Amino acid sequence: MKQPGLATEIDMFGRMTIALEEIEACREFVFLIPEVRTNLVFAQPHAKNPGEVMAIDGRITIINNMPRAAGRVRFGASSHMTRLIIELMKTDPSVRAGIDFANPAGFSDWLSDYCIKQGWVSVLIDRITEPAEIRIAGSSMQWKAAEAVRVAGGRVPKIICDAGGMGKEPVCIIVGDEPIGIARDVCEIARDYAQSRE
Amino acid sequence: MKQPGLATEIDMFGRMTIALEEIEACREFVFLIPEVRTNLVFAQPHAKNPGEVMAIDGRITIINNMPRAAGRVRFGASSHMTRLIIELMKTDPSVRAGIDFANPAGFSDWLSDYCIKQGWVSVLIDRITEPAEIRIAGSSMQWKAAEAVRVAGGRVPKIICDAGGMGKEPVCIIVGDEPIGIARDVCEIARDYAQSRE
Amino acid sequence: MKQPGLATEIDMFGRMTIALEEIEACREFVFLIPEVRTNLVFAQPHAKNPGEVMAIDGRITIINNMPRAAGRVRFGASSHMTRLIIELMKTDPSVRAGIDFANPAGFSDWLSDYCIKQGWVSVLIDRITEPAEIRIAGSSMQWKAAEAVRVAGGRVPKIICDAGGMGKEPVCIIVGDEPIGIARDVCEIARDYAQSRE
Amino acid sequence: MKQPGLATEIDMFGRMTIALEEIEACREFVFLIPEVRTNLVFAQPHAKNPGEVMAIDGRITIINNMPRAAGRVRFGASSHMTRLIIELMKTDPSVRAGIDFANPAGFSDWLSDYCIKQGWVSVLIDRITEPAEIRIAGSSMQWKAAEAVRVAGGRVPKIICDAGGMGKEPVCIIVGDEPIGIARDVCEIARDYAQSRE
Repeated sequence: MKQPGLATEIDMFGRMTIALEEIEACREFVFLIPEVRTNLVFAQPHAKNPGEVMAIDGRITIINNMPRAAGRVRFGASSHMTRLIIELMKTDPSVRAGIDFANPAGFSDWLSDYCIKQGWVSVLIDRITEPAEIRIAGSSMQWKAAEAVRVAGGRVPKIICDAGGMGKEPVCIIVGDEPIGIARDVCEIARDYAQSRE
Repeated sequence: MKQPGLATEIDMFGRMTIALEEIEACREFVFLIPEVRTNLVFAQPHAKNPGEVMAIDGRITIINNMPRAAGRVRFGASSHMTRLIIELMKTDPSVRAGIDFANPAGFSDWLSDYCIKQGWVSVLIDRITEPAEIRIAGSSMQWKAAEAVRVAGGRVPKIICDAGGMGKEPVCIIVGDEPIGIARDVCEIARDYAQSRE
Repeated sequence: MKQPGLATEIDMFGRMTIALEEIEACREFVFLIPEVRTNLVFAQPHAKNPGEVMAIDGRITIINNMPRAAGRVRFGASSHMTRLIIELMKTDPSVRAGIDFANPAGFSDWLSDYCIKQGWVSVLIDRITEPAEIRIAGSSMQWKAAEAVRVAGGRVPKIICDAGGMGKEPVCIIVGDEPIGIARDVCEIARDYAQSRE
Repeated sequence: MKQPGLATEIDMFGRMTIALEEIEACREFVFLIPEVRTNLVFAQPHAKNPGEVMAIDGRITIINNMPRAAGRVRFGASSHMTRLIIELMKTDPSVRAGIDFANPAGFSDWLSDYCIKQGWVSVLIDRITEPAEIRIAGSSMQWKAAEAVRVAGGRVPKIICDAGGMGKEPVCIIVGDEPIGIARDVCEIARDYAQSRE
């Protein structure tokens, strides 16, 4: 495992803290926190191991009806989202940050339109096409990343949604080069979606 | 909504705090915290509304590799587990407390044997038999409670497991008359299960 | 050290939790949190050791301009307030709970009038009369308790204030048989004092 | 009040988080946490208002016998330490960070020797020389800063200790250009002092 230099560590903790403040202040994001809760990850440049990726210890949950980090930001605090981001970085090393959010019934159609307006590439992954041996081997995230890149025509899309599967809640993921930007993006999505349903 | 008397409130907060201490000290329980995290609920006698049921705000998550309450104990802090316990209380008003935990591959067979040794009634619910209109109407918990009672022959079983379904993680639930007992039970299950896999 | 029975422990945790909720909801109490922060203690019956007295780990501090427990309620989490309550229990075993609060300039006169209206015995301790050898030996709390009882004519007063001393912030303490009552009392004091200064 | 640019904010949150990790991992620092608790402050360049200075909301307290931030890092979370640092910046704008710690009996002599070894300028302020009208006007921190600069011969010393006074606990302060360095310095002091007393 590679230790980040102090300048990188300062930049990473600083951005994660500001991104988290953004998310915790966004009341509407509560409606997009999935049952599995959400996590925000940020990989150091060229990360290859989970210990090189920052995340929120205990994930982001709902407390007093607001989004709230359960624990602190630390390296190695996530597994799923971390594996996904490490995998996507193999295609595009600039994609170092990601956050997952809920994909309730009807949402992915709305989001697809939203992405078109934003000029974002978005893909919908069908887990039914995931080979059983992959699921058993615990390499679902590698498969999901590869499938997203394949569907997007060889590049990393801005947004990846899946429709869930047996025992798997449907979720979406938004990625970017650093966490403040995607925190703002996901809060904007949450506010627009809330407004669309009033 | 009925306000509990002060004596009831003292008893409830006291028991929830001690139950939580038990769970937070149980390292092995980490392996039985599902992706959706877990919650511990305790209903005031004859509870009919979610506001009459205590739970952990933000659920119990994993921080520093140990189980940890994300927020405080408060009335109205849960929805799923709360609806389930209110529904079960219609059959047996003494069943006021419950906690959910993971049901990984192979676990429910092991747990079934464990329940026989303990002399506990346990049931396995098949969500495939859940009518689609119920899922859409958001009354899954009512159905699950009724189905558990039906399979157990008209009484509330000690343990209810389901095998998950489309978009739904498989989980088990243990219930009892108050939370300290079920916290001890679920920690005992976690320790025995961990030992069985060494 | 004596272990409390389960019924005592439930009662104690329950009362501490409810007392803390009362305090954390009282905005005006912020003005009575001293620089040394405050602690709420509750001794098990006939407590003789610090490990037999519950307190707030990390004391009660000010977060987001509201009173807030820094950590959890646990046995042995305090030293000063714990020693004082153990000492007072030698005179009156029913005095099991206490909380300290600020004594800003002019406050103790106001509080003295308030106590007369409530019918409470209150005393003002002068630390100048504290023998130097006691301060050096670290038995200030024993001295303070004994002095309070002496000034009150052989009984434990409801409120004990001191005027501070070299290196010591002036504080007041309110005691009672359990923490919910004194939490309500101290919040009432805070609200009345705030109103008196408008 | 001036808003910091995003780059400054990232740098500041990043450094505060890393500094806090350093302090929270330092067991020996517990013995140097004063009764009034401690705070770590970091001013944005040319700060003139408390809202331009970061600090720990609720101060750093002791939880589970370890140093622990009670709340989050945020602008405007401190008053005393913030006023002191703003005042010192008038003499030396590069002195943007500070942390206070205990000054128990006998400590300031030991620390004075330690500072000589480190090549640090340290001063001992005597609060007895503080004019009464200043204390009453609440401008003690301005006086303390000016007095420290005066005793140090016109520059900001690395360490400022005072011997306390009526109602005032004796404390020391270490300052620097950013918080990671002073967090490491203060932990080194705590470890060396603990060793010296074994």
